[in-house]
Amino acid sequence: MKVAQVLHMNGGVGHASYANNSLLQQKVICLTKPIREEAITSLYCNTVPRSLAVADLGCSSGPNTLLVVSEFIKIVEKLCRELNHKSPEYKVFLNDLPGNDFNNIFKSLDSFKEKLCDEMESGIGPCYFSGVPGSFYGRVFPNQSLHFVHSSYSLHWLSKVPEGVDNNRGNVYIGSTSPTNVARAYYEQFQRDFSLFLKCRAEELVKGGRMVLTFLGRRSDDPSSKDGGYVWELMATALNDMVLQGIIKEEQLDTFNIPLYTPSPSEVKLEVLKEGSFASNRLEVSEVNWNAFDDWNALEFESERSDTLSDGGYNVAQCMRAVAEPMLVSHFGEAIIEEVFSRYQQILTDRMSKEQTKCINVTVLLTRKA
Amino acid sequence: MKVAQVLHMNGGVGHASYANNSLLQQKVICLTKPIREEAITSLYCNTVPRSLAVADLGCSSGPNTLLVVSEFIKIVEKLCRELNHKSPEYKVFLNDLPGNDFNNIFKSLDSFKEKLCDEMESGIGPCYFSGVPGSFYGRVFPNQSLHFVHSSYSLHWLSKVPEGVDNNRGNVYIGSTSPTNVARAYYEQFQRDFSLFLKCRAEELVKGGRMVLTFLGRRSDDPSSKDGGYVWELMATALNDMVLQGIIKEEQLDTFNIPLYTPSPSEVKLEVLKEGSFASNRLEVSEVNWNAFDDWNALEFESERSDTLSDGGYNVAQCMRAVAEPMLVSHFGEAIIEEVFSRYQQILTDRMSKEQTKCINVTVLLTRKA
Repeated sequence: MKVAQVLHMNGGVGHASYANNSLLQQKVICLTKPIREEAITSLYCNTVPRSLAVADLGCSSGPNTLLVVSEFIKIVEKLCRELNHKSPEYKVFLNDLPGNDFNNIFKSLDSFKEKLCDEMESGIGPCYFSGVPGSFYGRVFPNQSLHFVHSSYSLHWLSKVPEGVDNNRGNVYIGSTSPTNVARAYYEQFQRDFSLFLKCRAEELVKGGRMVLTFLGRRSDDPSSKDGGYVWELMATALNDMVLQGIIKEEQLDTFNIPLYTPSPSEVKLEVLKEGSFASNRLEVSEVNWNAFDDWNALEFESERSDTLSDGGYNVAQCMRAVAEPMLVSHFGEAIIEEVFSRYQQILTDRMSKEQTKCINVTVLLTRKA
Repeated sequence: MKVAQVLHMNGGVGHASYANNSLLQQKVICLTKPIREEAITSLYCNTVPRSLAVADLGCSSGPNTLLVVSEFIKIVEKLCRELNHKSPEYKVFLNDLPGNDFNNIFKSLDSFKEKLCDEMESGIGPCYFSGVPGSFYGRVFPNQSLHFVHSSYSLHWLSKVPEGVDNNRGNVYIGSTSPTNVARAYYEQFQRDFSLFLKCRAEELVKGGRMVLTFLGRRSDDPSSKDGGYVWELMATALNDMVLQGIIKEEQLDTFNIPLYTPSPSEVKLEVLKEGSFASNRLEVSEVNWNAFDDWNALEFESERSDTLSDGGYNVAQCMRAVAEPMLVSHFGEAIIEEVFSRYQQILTDRMSKEQTKCINVTVLLTRKA
């Protein structure tokens, strides 16, 4: 699997699009706001820059894409008012893999800017937006060109499926029945990837630049623990059922593994320490329900969607479909997709009625050492 | 007409796409290479920068998009070899209106970079690409952030249809039957737009930065002269025929005017002088046949296209369709498009058999004053 070509959220604005199924990711961004506030405030107050370059890595394309940028500008403008400073100039870089739907983002920028200006009565500094395609497991920006880097729910994606997981039969990630070498191979790939990520960003950030990174992760230090990959294990259950019924070939399932790793807080911290360019200012764990609509105010949504709000299995299946469909299509073909997600939804509904199912988020705030 | 939303070349890679019908624009880029060589050489030799920021404004999406960027890098690398300098870092900004197919460009970047590296045996400096959506009749880039700006066959597009051309009945641009106020309104819009363009670029370019701009223009100082808008006058002929046959309403045609101006060399020069931020180093006029295949080596093209090579009317109609279809669809609707271009092709074929039909290009090389 060529991850850089196959890994992208579902484009467009249809019913299976990422744009329409990214409430979970939005809630995670909201949850981690205090850490960004701390990072941006200390960045601004320590450097008082005339020009601020901010990059969102793995920006995707949908309602979440500009959320953090908008928050960033608002926090800085509030500080400028309080300190009686002139607004800086903002350079905003939106990064994702080349398969991301950048056209969709670009078409929304004018109305985004208008809305932001309307909200900020006292005005904002000039904003310059650009789209930067490319894998963040390599250099994406010029030397020392960034002040603030943000990435949420992207860095758990690996640069590739680890080598040496051929014996991970019947699983698509580290599952309860995976041989021990599988978890090791996944962890080593995470270490290589995240360490390379840190090295590249260290070159791109100015000294004193801040970085806030949120991973889909786990609390436990055991990589096969349920809080990490359970949602994928249930997808494997759906695929295994289809193998049993002859709809998918066993060999096809056995050769499918997803390029993902859900690290624990200490695994994240260890790589930061080993790489050495960043000071770790904060490391936090938070959680959200799989069904993002669970504790959300249903009144905020149009009535046509309200029927489905209570159907947690449907919501989670759609969320996972928006994320995983391009990868599944690339491996299994288009034909089985509806069937996979219909079965997956049933399995999810069943499990969610019996267990408390949550995603664990690991967030770290780093400062580029001088 | 909201030009910023409606003006874009046909996307994708189909038979009516800009990507497949932009040979004319490619020939113009090739013709003007010596001016860019002069500009880039003097820029590099006078400043010897460690980092070079280059922007292509109106980059479109197709085989021409990265032509000038590739040429730019090759010229600089050759100079580095000759002068025994280390390669600089390249920041490449690709700009067009938000409706441009940036996704298509972004997907081609990896293979572009690979090809470029293969061609340059001695290696090239690191290249960072970004897409920058937005109208160049406004600020697009941060202050003093660019060294070289290029734009070919984009600046003859105005920011809007001029006001006060309601009486331009039966024409879509300045035609031989247009009232005199129409030419004046178009010229004044050009003056406002180009002057604003120069003002914005003056803020974005570093002192000593270079700019090479090519317009679809005319030799004559008479704005209604045939060498300027004849290709559009023939499109008006096709539309008028359809009005006569009741396929298009007269009122619909009367309210359609294209946001374009084909300036003369002295009109371009005058605005540069008036605006005052740039020294004009060179001003040249060149020409290309309407049918770009005319003097092109047919062997370069796949055999399936060779049948059509000799059909000049078809080639010109396709070229114009790739450029004008979104605008026509927005005003007249989808239904009449095939018919318009079929009639237009016949008219073009007839005229081209009887006249020498050429596009006039006006190219200017400017330096940002210190």
